[in-house]
Amino acid sequence: MEPINVFDYETLAKERMNPAYWDYYAGGSDDEVTLRDNQRDFARIRLRPRMLVDVRQCNTSTSVQGLPISMPILVAPTAMHCLAHSEGECATAQGAGAVDTLMIASTSATRTLEEIAQAASGPLWFQLYIYYSLDVAAGLVRRAERAGYQAIVLTVDLPAMGNRERSRRHGVPMPPPPLVRANFVGIGQEDIGQVAVTWETIDWLRTITSLPVLIKGILTAEDAQLAIAHGVSGIIVSNHGGRQLDGVVTSIEALPEIVEAVAGRCEVYMDGGIRRGTDIFKALALGARAVLVGRPIIWGLAADGARGVQQVLSILHTELELAMKLAGCPTLASINHTFLKL
Amino acid sequence: MEPINVFDYETLAKERMNPAYWDYYAGGSDDEVTLRDNQRDFARIRLRPRMLVDVRQCNTSTSVQGLPISMPILVAPTAMHCLAHSEGECATAQGAGAVDTLMIASTSATRTLEEIAQAASGPLWFQLYIYYSLDVAAGLVRRAERAGYQAIVLTVDLPAMGNRERSRRHGVPMPPPPLVRANFVGIGQEDIGQVAVTWETIDWLRTITSLPVLIKGILTAEDAQLAIAHGVSGIIVSNHGGRQLDGVVTSIEALPEIVEAVAGRCEVYMDGGIRRGTDIFKALALGARAVLVGRPIIWGLAADGARGVQQVLSILHTELELAMKLAGCPTLASINHTFLKL
Amino acid sequence: MEPINVFDYETLAKERMNPAYWDYYAGGSDDEVTLRDNQRDFARIRLRPRMLVDVRQCNTSTSVQGLPISMPILVAPTAMHCLAHSEGECATAQGAGAVDTLMIASTSATRTLEEIAQAASGPLWFQLYIYYSLDVAAGLVRRAERAGYQAIVLTVDLPAMGNRERSRRHGVPMPPPPLVRANFVGIGQEDIGQVAVTWETIDWLRTITSLPVLIKGILTAEDAQLAIAHGVSGIIVSNHGGRQLDGVVTSIEALPEIVEAVAGRCEVYMDGGIRRGTDIFKALALGARAVLVGRPIIWGLAADGARGVQQVLSILHTELELAMKLAGCPTLASINHTFLKL
Amino acid sequence: MEPINVFDYETLAKERMNPAYWDYYAGGSDDEVTLRDNQRDFARIRLRPRMLVDVRQCNTSTSVQGLPISMPILVAPTAMHCLAHSEGECATAQGAGAVDTLMIASTSATRTLEEIAQAASGPLWFQLYIYYSLDVAAGLVRRAERAGYQAIVLTVDLPAMGNRERSRRHGVPMPPPPLVRANFVGIGQEDIGQVAVTWETIDWLRTITSLPVLIKGILTAEDAQLAIAHGVSGIIVSNHGGRQLDGVVTSIEALPEIVEAVAGRCEVYMDGGIRRGTDIFKALALGARAVLVGRPIIWGLAADGARGVQQVLSILHTELELAMKLAGCPTLASINHTFLKL
Repeated sequence: MEPINVFDYETLAKERMNPAYWDYYAGGSDDEVTLRDNQRDFARIRLRPRMLVDVRQCNTSTSVQGLPISMPILVAPTAMHCLAHSEGECATAQGAGAVDTLMIASTSATRTLEEIAQAASGPLWFQLYIYYSLDVAAGLVRRAERAGYQAIVLTVDLPAMGNRERSRRHGVPMPPPPLVRANFVGIGQEDIGQVAVTWETIDWLRTITSLPVLIKGILTAEDAQLAIAHGVSGIIVSNHGGRQLDGVVTSIEALPEIVEAVAGRCEVYMDGGIRRGTDIFKALALGARAVLVGRPIIWGLAADGARGVQQVLSILHTELELAMKLAGCPTLASINHTFLKL
Repeated sequence: MEPINVFDYETLAKERMNPAYWDYYAGGSDDEVTLRDNQRDFARIRLRPRMLVDVRQCNTSTSVQGLPISMPILVAPTAMHCLAHSEGECATAQGAGAVDTLMIASTSATRTLEEIAQAASGPLWFQLYIYYSLDVAAGLVRRAERAGYQAIVLTVDLPAMGNRERSRRHGVPMPPPPLVRANFVGIGQEDIGQVAVTWETIDWLRTITSLPVLIKGILTAEDAQLAIAHGVSGIIVSNHGGRQLDGVVTSIEALPEIVEAVAGRCEVYMDGGIRRGTDIFKALALGARAVLVGRPIIWGLAADGARGVQQVLSILHTELELAMKLAGCPTLASINHTFLKL
Repeated sequence: MEPINVFDYETLAKERMNPAYWDYYAGGSDDEVTLRDNQRDFARIRLRPRMLVDVRQCNTSTSVQGLPISMPILVAPTAMHCLAHSEGECATAQGAGAVDTLMIASTSATRTLEEIAQAASGPLWFQLYIYYSLDVAAGLVRRAERAGYQAIVLTVDLPAMGNRERSRRHGVPMPPPPLVRANFVGIGQEDIGQVAVTWETIDWLRTITSLPVLIKGILTAEDAQLAIAHGVSGIIVSNHGGRQLDGVVTSIEALPEIVEAVAGRCEVYMDGGIRRGTDIFKALALGARAVLVGRPIIWGLAADGARGVQQVLSILHTELELAMKLAGCPTLASINHTFLKL
Repeated sequence: MEPINVFDYETLAKERMNPAYWDYYAGGSDDEVTLRDNQRDFARIRLRPRMLVDVRQCNTSTSVQGLPISMPILVAPTAMHCLAHSEGECATAQGAGAVDTLMIASTSATRTLEEIAQAASGPLWFQLYIYYSLDVAAGLVRRAERAGYQAIVLTVDLPAMGNRERSRRHGVPMPPPPLVRANFVGIGQEDIGQVAVTWETIDWLRTITSLPVLIKGILTAEDAQLAIAHGVSGIIVSNHGGRQLDGVVTSIEALPEIVEAVAGRCEVYMDGGIRRGTDIFKALALGARAVLVGRPIIWGLAADGARGVQQVLSILHTELELAMKLAGCPTLASINHTFLKL
């Protein structure tokens, strides 16, 4: 039977994937408290739907950093898509483009950023990890600019790798060497945390590129204020899918204080735990411009390649549209906090 | 053994019904969060019973829209009773009439509204969906008036069909074509959401009928205020049994803010999650004039036809009466919020 | 192995008792929500123990209505002890007397109040139900006075019998006729609720006896105020072990508002959910003069007759004493709300 | 496979230990509510991590009572290590010393305090129970001074032994006589609670030793104030691992009120429920100078002797360091309550 929600894709993906690879994507850090809480915290928020509104024309199209997209749902940057499907990030990009939304390609892709750009039909942002040195990072940024990426998303919550015990227990090199770090071929051994990525790095990054610079991994109002002071164009509220520090606030919990601190000075996105259209509706009602979806994209990719990615995005789109109709919101602009009971 | 509570009827009904039909009635939308919460939220409210009151004469009789009934418990409008029992809505109407209470017959009945009216011995209201056009709706209203229905209950929370995955997974046409939409024979294909049902529709509806117009599906104080402004005679607080937007506030949670907003300007009813007499007592204490009971009626109908419906209503009546006695309330008028610890 | 806590006695009792009788004692009303909550609510209250107090001499002796007892733990009135043990209430009275505490004998005893008085070595109160008429009740009170009972405890939360479904499902006359209502031999058929028991009944009761009149079954500050106004000598906060109105406030939850309303004008006792010495400590810290223990007494009785009752009381006494030592309270008077974190 | 967290050591220890000994260490008192809550309460506190801080040099070294240690993690005093490993406390001391942290040796050790001191390479404190008489206690203090212990930690929460039902159910003398109380050989039978240990005992203890006097087992601000008034050098917030009064506040719950009451006048440590580096981070953020770890040390000891103790401490150290990096705290001094969402 055709999958009807993202959980159906989760089941399919688990059946089809190498268990070590499955665990790589599915796992969180330590006791996976945050992994679970990211989803659970959505259930604490109840909706207050309004009735008798004309919702026959329900419009989900929006823009992020000025780029028009068909829905406020972005493909989150996740690593090594070739573990899920042989075509890797190229298939993901095709799936996202097919529904006219944006993909954020990861530094840790198993296809080069140029290959992904070539495969893509929709807009792309490039997610940047600064692993080795600022020079290497600058090289990646230049390549991304040349390949047509339209923003740089610096991930800031990985000064060290989180304690992901599922992967550690598999005790095997994962992924197999030829797949990893397509963007770094010839550069040598990864060595996270040797470069200090600080607020000054944001300043530097803005000097070497004219693309908008966004940061991903902010969970406090204090850091949101600093981000604004350092000129970022967007903030992605995220706890890295529960894979970095276990026990942190959830993304949906952190979102309101960040939206309040930003006060409209840049776009705020939300990443982590989205599984239903109503989750997206709740994030938008709390002030997110759009949400990022990570694991469900991998599930679609593993289950059915580009078509699976497209289907997962379509399901979430349909669910969001239905949530808007049933809540009495014909437009994204009409969604606000009065639709929530916190 | 004779069933002693509504859950016993639930068990019987599940045994006797076609699983696809069972799932149609039992299911909610998406992850069925609201379906579960409707019941659970009653348990959060504790009773503060008063002692040493003379409760030998305990009176549950009341009126709704001026119609005298034996208990503040109404038969909720639910679709397609022929899926539960061959006599369908006619049996339901007989069961309700046998205990002198009111049935709200659904637009989506599998018996025509005229057949139901003929079978009924108690008062009837007609629940209206506006599916096709205002003309079709007006036709139904006229037929309901002629058949003796005493109010029109417009359901306002279905601008689109909720995502009821249990039904979608059965993947079969349900119900079989001859049964459905007895009221629409010869009208053609259902097409929900093509008519925009808005507050203006309420105004229009009031112009075409002299019957009281009630609306069903309100969950916020804001909409309750609008409903009053548009001249409704009654508001049914309801989330459609958890079958429309998943994750909304529960009916019992929404009730107080609506009662407060209405401030006595029309009657307020409550629908969703009633399984015990104490649930009814709690709804009344929060200001409901009466409650609607949906699934338990279907259980009684499936288990034992008209007699099962009658028994389910009798059980709830007996339980309500006992709750009143044990709480020290000899009359419905004596029930108020001081009997609750929220 | 020797039982070391009351739950061990629960296990033993369940093994030894007729299942219908077990269910009679174990069950609550409706969905048994209150039955469970009575115990659970104790766990919500945490203790704030004080250290470095000399607790070598720890004294639990106290008085109730001026009667000295060895511990603030009373035997609650419960019905038909012959269902648990052939010697019935006589064995219970012996067990309570052996540890120098007080038993409240039930109107619904399977031994006459005179037999119980004869068997007892400790003080007794008589629990009164007014089933038939004031005359019958007056007769019981006179008999209790003559037999040496030292207070009358009128149960006020039974204007009708709660909906105890476990017993209803057994569908057999329980208990077998020769056992029941030893106090009513020759009086005829029980008919609860035909006599209205009201505040005026308290006034009347005080005119026909010089014994202190206590009432059992109060759950609100309002009723506590009325009780004081009607001259009661003691209030027993109780929800009848979750056997009357399901979903009411728990006894430990209701206790503080009642203690506050009473403001020292009479003694307040607490009944329901006591299983550990720390439960007793919590009730005392919230202002109870003593607690009543119901089901655990039945468990001791069923497991080992008078000796089992004595052991259950000894275990609770030992646990209370240990709780006092570990909390830094050498006397009952030193226990107060500062020892709790609510 | 090599254990990767303390729970792996728990599993190993359970496999290797005599079940009665396992239960001795694993169990709590009564219903083990506090045993469970000690860990659960950590999960209620969420972290607010800060990003873009240079955390390449992350320093966990600190001091307690002026003694430099490599991490704010101390070995809690626990009894009878020979039940876990044949080398007992000597192995534990070696393990702690190997990672340059401090062990608090228990009065109830199965090795004499002199043997432990000889085996140790790191700093030691001596935990004191006053069992028999002040003279015996004074003798222990003098021996501890001579052996090089650098503080006396008086445990104040054991005026009587908690009701540890797991041990009672084993019903066997545990531990076998030759092992116990190495420090008391020739002194005779243990008789807890015959000496009243009060605030005056603290005063006395300070007169007989020049070592810093700390007290362990404080759970309220009131007692913390008294402790300061009586001149203690440190307070260890502890509920004895849930083994004394069941249902008390948890250590992490009590910590803030104690830190506030102490207001910097002495060092405050926290003991109970630490299983992850993030638990330690939370305790430090609430004002603890360091934490004590009890059961996990026993697990390491049982699994692998001195090396297991060292490994458990190393794992916790590594986890703490990672938590600091991921939270944006390069130093212990930078950790404060703004990193928590309570």
